[in-house]
Order: sequence, then C-alpha cells, then structure tokens
Amino acid sequence: VTTLSTVPEAASRSPKGEQTRQAIVAAALDLFRAGGYDRTTMRAIADAAGVSLGNAYYYFGSKEHLVQAFYDRVQVEHAAAAEEVLSRETAFAARLAGVLDAWVNVAAPYHAFAGKFFKNAAEPTSPLSPFSQESQGARAASVSLFATVLDGSDLKLTPALRAEMPELLWLMHMGVVLFWVHDSSPGQRRTRVLVAQAVPLVDKLARMTRLPVVRGVVNDLVALVRSLRS
Amino acid sequence: VTTLSTVPEAASRSPKGEQTRQAIVAAALDLFRAGGYDRTTMRAIADAAGVSLGNAYYYFGSKEHLVQAFYDRVQVEHAAAAEEVLSRETAFAARLAGVLDAWVNVAAPYHAFAGKFFKNAAEPTSPLSPFSQESQGARAASVSLFATVLDGSDLKLTPALRAEMPELLWLMHMGVVLFWVHDSSPGQRRTRVLVAQAVPLVDKLARMTRLPVVRGVVNDLVALVRSLRS
Repeated sequence: VTTLSTVPEAASRSPKGEQTRQAIVAAALDLFRAGGYDRTTMRAIADAAGVSLGNAYYYFGSKEHLVQAFYDRVQVEHAAAAEEVLSRETAFAARLAGVLDAWVNVAAPYHAFAGKFFKNAAEPTSPLSPFSQESQGARAASVSLFATVLDGSDLKLTPALRAEMPELLWLMHMGVVLFWVHDSSPGQRRTRVLVAQAVPLVDKLARMTRLPVVRGVVNDLVALVRSLRS
Repeated sequence: VTTLSTVPEAASRSPKGEQTRQAIVAAALDLFRAGGYDRTTMRAIADAAGVSLGNAYYYFGSKEHLVQAFYDRVQVEHAAAAEEVLSRETAFAARLAGVLDAWVNVAAPYHAFAGKFFKNAAEPTSPLSPFSQESQGARAASVSLFATVLDGSDLKLTPALRAEMPELLWLMHMGVVLFWVHDSSPGQRRTRVLVAQAVPLVDKLARMTRLPVVRGVVNDLVALVRSLRS
C-alpha cells in the first residue's frame, strides 16, 4: 500500500514545486481522457508534462496519487465555487441546490474523462473509489462543505440526525455524481434538473424528521447506522 | 455481449443434462472458491466436473454464464427456504425478517466464495453485478419473492409506493448482502443481528408513509425516481 506521506510536502508546495505538480496533474488528466487510465504510463505523463520520469515520481508515487491530486483539486475548486451562494443564502434548500449546482459547473470540463474513468472509481475495493481509505482527504473536505451548507442554514434537526447529516448530504452528492457520469445531455442539463427536483424533497423530508411521530424512528435509524460503523 | 440464449435450453433441462449442468456449476464454484474467479479456466472446470471442454461449453458459453447459473440456483434455494415463513406469517415485519434470514441460511455455504468473488460482482459495469442486464433473470425472481412478502402481509401503502416497494425491499436485501460479504463473525451472526434490528425500522417507516403529512413527499419521491428511470 502506497501512502501520500511519500510525497515531500514542503518541496512540492513551493511556488515552483506547485507549478510543476499542477503541470503533471494537467498532463495526466489529458492523457487519461485521451487514452484511458489503465493504458496511460507514468513515463507518458512525465513526457507530456516536460519533466523527467524521476521528477514525476518525486511528486507522485504512482498514477493513483495523481488521481487523488485530481480529486483534491476538484474539491478545492468546488469549495471556491460554492462560496458565493453560501454567503448569500440562509434557506437550506437554496444552499444545498447552490452547492450541488456549483459542483456540476466545476466538474463540466472533466465530464468526458469521468465517463472513461468511472470503471476505475466505481470498484468499491479500489483506492480510487470515493469511499476508499486513500480518498479520505478529499472526502472529508467535501463532507465539511456539506456541514457548512447545514451550519449557516435555517434547518433544525434532532441532535442525532444533525450529527450524521453532513455525511448523508455527501452521499446524496455522490448519487448526483453517479447520475452526472451517465448524463449525456448537453451541458449535463438533466443533472441540473435532477438537483432542482430532488432538493425540495430532501428539504421537506429533513424538516419532517422533527415531527413527534417520525422523530423516534429516525433516532433509531441513526443509532443502527452508527452501530454498523463501529 | 454474450447472452443466455446460446444455452440449449431443452437439452440442458433433460434429467441427464440437468445433472451434468449441476456437476459443472458445482465444480466451477469449488474452483472459484479455491483459486479465485479470474484465475479459473473453463478447461479446469471441465476437468474437475469430468466432462470434455466442448461439453462444458455446450452448457455454458463462458465463466460468466456459470456465475449466472449460480445466481439462479441461490435464487431457487432462497425461494424454497422462504416458503415456510411466508405460509405461516401475515405480519409484514415477520415475513420480511423471515425471508432475509432464509437467504443468510441458504447462502452460508458460499460465504468464503463470496468474499473472494465480491470484487467481480461489485464493479457496476460488470455483467456479474446484481444490477446488470445479464443478471436480470435472477434479479426479477428475487424482486418477485419480495412482492410475495408484501402481497400476503398486513402492510397498507399508498398505490405509488406499493408499486415500487418490491424493488425497494430487494435493494434492502442487497444492502444486507453487502454487509454479509464483509461479515466475518461466526455463522454470520452480525448479519442476523442487523436483519433483526433493521426490519422493525423499515416496518415503522413503511407504515408512516400513509400519514397525511408524509404521504405527499413520498408520492413526489416515487415520481422523481420513476422519471429518472425513463
């Protein structure tokens, strides 16, 4: 098992180092998109980025690390694109829809790549799965964005559900991403329609969980999910 | 794309043919279990079953067809094992728990195999995925078993949800199967505990969907899911 700790953080985060890192990631994405993930070699990536193979390996221990860097990059772009709506809106539905839409905007340039790459990421035991140990960094950052959606919103929840909600919203986001991967409509229009239709229902369901008749079952469900994790 | 229509149905369903089919499936399962799916060849399966390679291919167009035959077999065994509880109970929760537990009993001999095989079945684009086109036969049979759970039960649902419920119960069953694959407790005891804990919650949630405040959102959700399918 390779780990990201092999990447020399200090060196790679200097302005020059960061520029080289980004050039390598950009070259990798171009090649993954053109020839597929499996058939792209580190040598081809180094060549396309104009660096030596040794230098490419200095920044990224493997192709897998390049994909994790890609996940991290999309995540940073997503958080930046979501800032505007989160500073403006307090209604939960508007915040959630804004953040989900921001991702569709940010991810648009990678749509063709995502279609080819899906097979690699969809395998649950793969380190490239969004659910894997290796993707933990990008996943935690994304979950914390959905925690922000909730924090600044008018939505009130029972404490048990409140604690789980950021991860549940992230799961919803993964559902939208899955739909988006297979969405061949121009500009991924169908994904935007899905977000527009699904968000009001999630909003209503979330508010319903505080009703006396519903609250007990929801708390039991949360307790069951928690016991499964441990 | 290979299809099951290449299997000569009439021949393979004669008593002698059926015996040979079952011998080939049993040999394949033994070898998959011992050496993994990917590394097992049709030749090794034919040898272990004591038939010629040509004869093995006469019954099964590929290793994939053998797995589909395995799915079908588990499905038939599951339906038979569920008969007793379904003829005895009318309470929805008791029927659902009985059918989910029956699967855990029937699948127990394949637990070691399932752990090794999971990687192949978990890949969503694989024909061996329970969600694939190729698995449609076994999936439809399983969904219809969950329709029976519902049909003979005391559970009342709105018409929209009623129509979707057999498939939702099948999805729940898939969740239990996923948990079971990773369950290393003796006799898959933890899976049985999960069923015992989850079923009463599903029962309560299902009954709640008829409450006036909840019904509208549930109908909207069902309509959204339906629109996504088409």
